[in-house]
Amino acid sequence: MHETRDLARFITGSRWETLPQPVRHEATRALVNWIGCPIWGGRDEAVTRALAALDPFSGPREAALLGRAERLDPMKAALINGIASGISDYDDTHLATVIHPTGPPACALLALVERHRVSGAQFLHALALGIEVQCRVATALAHGASGAWFMTGVTGGIGAAVAAGLALGLDEERMVWAMALAASRAAGSRETHGTMAKHLVAGCAAEEGLFGAFLAQQGFGAPDAPIEGKRGLGTLVAPGADFSALTEGLGTSFELMRNAYKPFPSGIVTHAAITAALELAREAGLDPEAVATVRLAVHPLCLELCGRRAPASALEGTFSVYHWVAVALIHRAAGIRQFSDGIVRDAAVAALRERIDARAEPAYRKDEAQLEITLRDGRVLRRHVDHALGAVERPPSDDALTQKLADLCADRFPREAGERLAQIAWGLADEPDAARLVAAATLR
Amino acid sequence: MHETRDLARFITGSRWETLPQPVRHEATRALVNWIGCPIWGGRDEAVTRALAALDPFSGPREAALLGRAERLDPMKAALINGIASGISDYDDTHLATVIHPTGPPACALLALVERHRVSGAQFLHALALGIEVQCRVATALAHGASGAWFMTGVTGGIGAAVAAGLALGLDEERMVWAMALAASRAAGSRETHGTMAKHLVAGCAAEEGLFGAFLAQQGFGAPDAPIEGKRGLGTLVAPGADFSALTEGLGTSFELMRNAYKPFPSGIVTHAAITAALELAREAGLDPEAVATVRLAVHPLCLELCGRRAPASALEGTFSVYHWVAVALIHRAAGIRQFSDGIVRDAAVAALRERIDARAEPAYRKDEAQLEITLRDGRVLRRHVDHALGAVERPPSDDALTQKLADLCADRFPREAGERLAQIAWGLADEPDAARLVAAATLR
Repeated sequence: MHETRDLARFITGSRWETLPQPVRHEATRALVNWIGCPIWGGRDEAVTRALAALDPFSGPREAALLGRAERLDPMKAALINGIASGISDYDDTHLATVIHPTGPPACALLALVERHRVSGAQFLHALALGIEVQCRVATALAHGASGAWFMTGVTGGIGAAVAAGLALGLDEERMVWAMALAASRAAGSRETHGTMAKHLVAGCAAEEGLFGAFLAQQGFGAPDAPIEGKRGLGTLVAPGADFSALTEGLGTSFELMRNAYKPFPSGIVTHAAITAALELAREAGLDPEAVATVRLAVHPLCLELCGRRAPASALEGTFSVYHWVAVALIHRAAGIRQFSDGIVRDAAVAALRERIDARAEPAYRKDEAQLEITLRDGRVLRRHVDHALGAVERPPSDDALTQKLADLCADRFPREAGERLAQIAWGLADEPDAARLVAAATLR
Repeated sequence: MHETRDLARFITGSRWETLPQPVRHEATRALVNWIGCPIWGGRDEAVTRALAALDPFSGPREAALLGRAERLDPMKAALINGIASGISDYDDTHLATVIHPTGPPACALLALVERHRVSGAQFLHALALGIEVQCRVATALAHGASGAWFMTGVTGGIGAAVAAGLALGLDEERMVWAMALAASRAAGSRETHGTMAKHLVAGCAAEEGLFGAFLAQQGFGAPDAPIEGKRGLGTLVAPGADFSALTEGLGTSFELMRNAYKPFPSGIVTHAAITAALELAREAGLDPEAVATVRLAVHPLCLELCGRRAPASALEGTFSVYHWVAVALIHRAAGIRQFSDGIVRDAAVAALRERIDARAEPAYRKDEAQLEITLRDGRVLRRHVDHALGAVERPPSDDALTQKLADLCADRFPREAGERLAQIAWGLADEPDAARLVAAATLR
């Protein structure tokens, strides 16, 4: 019953320099992988509408909106950047819990650094621990939680509070309160999927994390055991919660190392099927016209979360394994350039979607899939994928992450500006002022 | 699966003039009962600290803080007023669900009316329907929800969204979205009880309701069935949710009529026991020194929620039936003047608390209690209370509500200012501009 306090003690006692080198490098990779997402999503209609709604209430405009020119107060900037980061569903995924851990702490930090100076190393340290705590809370709550919970929302505020709390230099007691205040607002429903409301979670989590840290800084008290307490988050969300996951191996075993970076802008549970389709299409030089039927076997969660048969928009397409398998077979590519309403509505893609039959295979891992294509001439092509591209076992190279960032920035920034952003992000640990990262990610 | 839409249709089609007269009067009573609470609580340390944390981020200061002189942007004002309203635990209670329904919609409306002109009747109409929807959502979710949920938080944002949405004139579709956006952020944990964090729920709900209404107004889409949908609030919070409660008897049966106003500033479940103690102390002219032991029988929820044996502060005292029974026996009064750290720490009160034994009686209603006092001379005094003072069956008169408001304002405003506020509140239905109510509740 003191896991939150133990976490807070570890967090406030931790230093960037003493994190293992692979963890420090992975924090940088998480940032590079993620930061293109809010830039790409920044001009989406959902962002524009949220901005129109909230701009009249903005306080001092001390924080930048990524990929845009406007500025807002830090709490609203964190919210809007978080909304933008979720548009493409192209961010990172802690596969064991299916949460997207970088957005909430990163948005809280990006909103803070122009007001409150922190070094690049402090930024990455706070990001690494925000991600770490968030993944550990999600792991603890994975036992018995309904699949209806949107766990990024449930855990993201706590991760953002940790990151913001570290940047603000909170002591152990106030770090507990910051986490507890965020935990008391933890929310998130998968009913939102397929609507603009889905994009809110990372943004609200980031804002609520800042809120918790700012209130705790002023001595606003909160419970000691917000997660593991009798009426805490565990009881509310996950009747079988295993709180030992909050602290076991803390400082030696890092969940950050089990964070995956998406090669495809769709639900992570679709990635094994897309990998199979891409590999088969490329190796066999497949003519999509020649395809009679496609049979797919996937982990049950793939169909539960991404079983939409006939998406009507790119947004809905992110929840359709049928769509992205069809795209991969036809385009032999499944990147951000294939994420468009036009491709979702394309007649050839729609026709192929309808010829795909998918079944749930409970024995599969989440990143495993099998694809069987029957051609019109009767031939059958098969591909079994043990680990999806982008899975922890098949991580993208640093160069692949640089390319992903460049693709996401392509329509937003001149090429040199995108390259400069990548350079600053990769070298952030040596930057004296993390605000340089924000400046490079903003239109001016 | 269309209860939220049915609610939105009813809400947007409803008019103040066509509400039954008793409902209109009860909306006014709910306001008069409640509005002293944020004024009284406005100078609490929790409010001061939250204000210190959030003031630097305020946007245009278009909204007043009740009982204070500062102003904030509407979203932050709603939050701070909500925090202030919960300090005393003296607001209203929908006894069937133990939620405090007036705070969230009232705070959203009070924050809005200086920016967006509404008449007094529009204000009361929006308040009445915000309360109504909130109580209905809580009733629907009462089946199977863990007692660890702080249901005012879970349902309050939806009530606030309804109220704000009506004030903004949202159409049916956008009213659904406003409710859905608030529902997607629904949160609240009883682990916060006894800390400052407990006071956040009404404030966060009010802010999130405004947030939902402002975003919906700009066309920010959200799910159609946020409460009753497969992955909606019902599934998350209450596995046995009965969604028929959302719409059954809508327009003819009003939960607002089953809302109770506290005579005592403590947890509602303590009220039957306090009533018994007060009545016995007054009628028997009881000398507290003569009391040997006190035996109390109460509904189990009384001890579950308010079973704190040795509170250390007025705040903790609100969760102690032992404390308030002792206060009632010694002071022969249990109002806001008895709500103080000094009385909690008073040796005589503490000594009497320790001589009280309480047991849970599952057969009792929540507003039923029995008190048995054994005097040092061996005599035994007994009192059985069927309905607590302030219960729906024993509602306070309009005059009693006026007095409660005066008591709450006594240390904040000159007497005439308090009387003027009461006058405006009672006559609000005929005020052309609801902002006059705000002006009367503010220090200038």
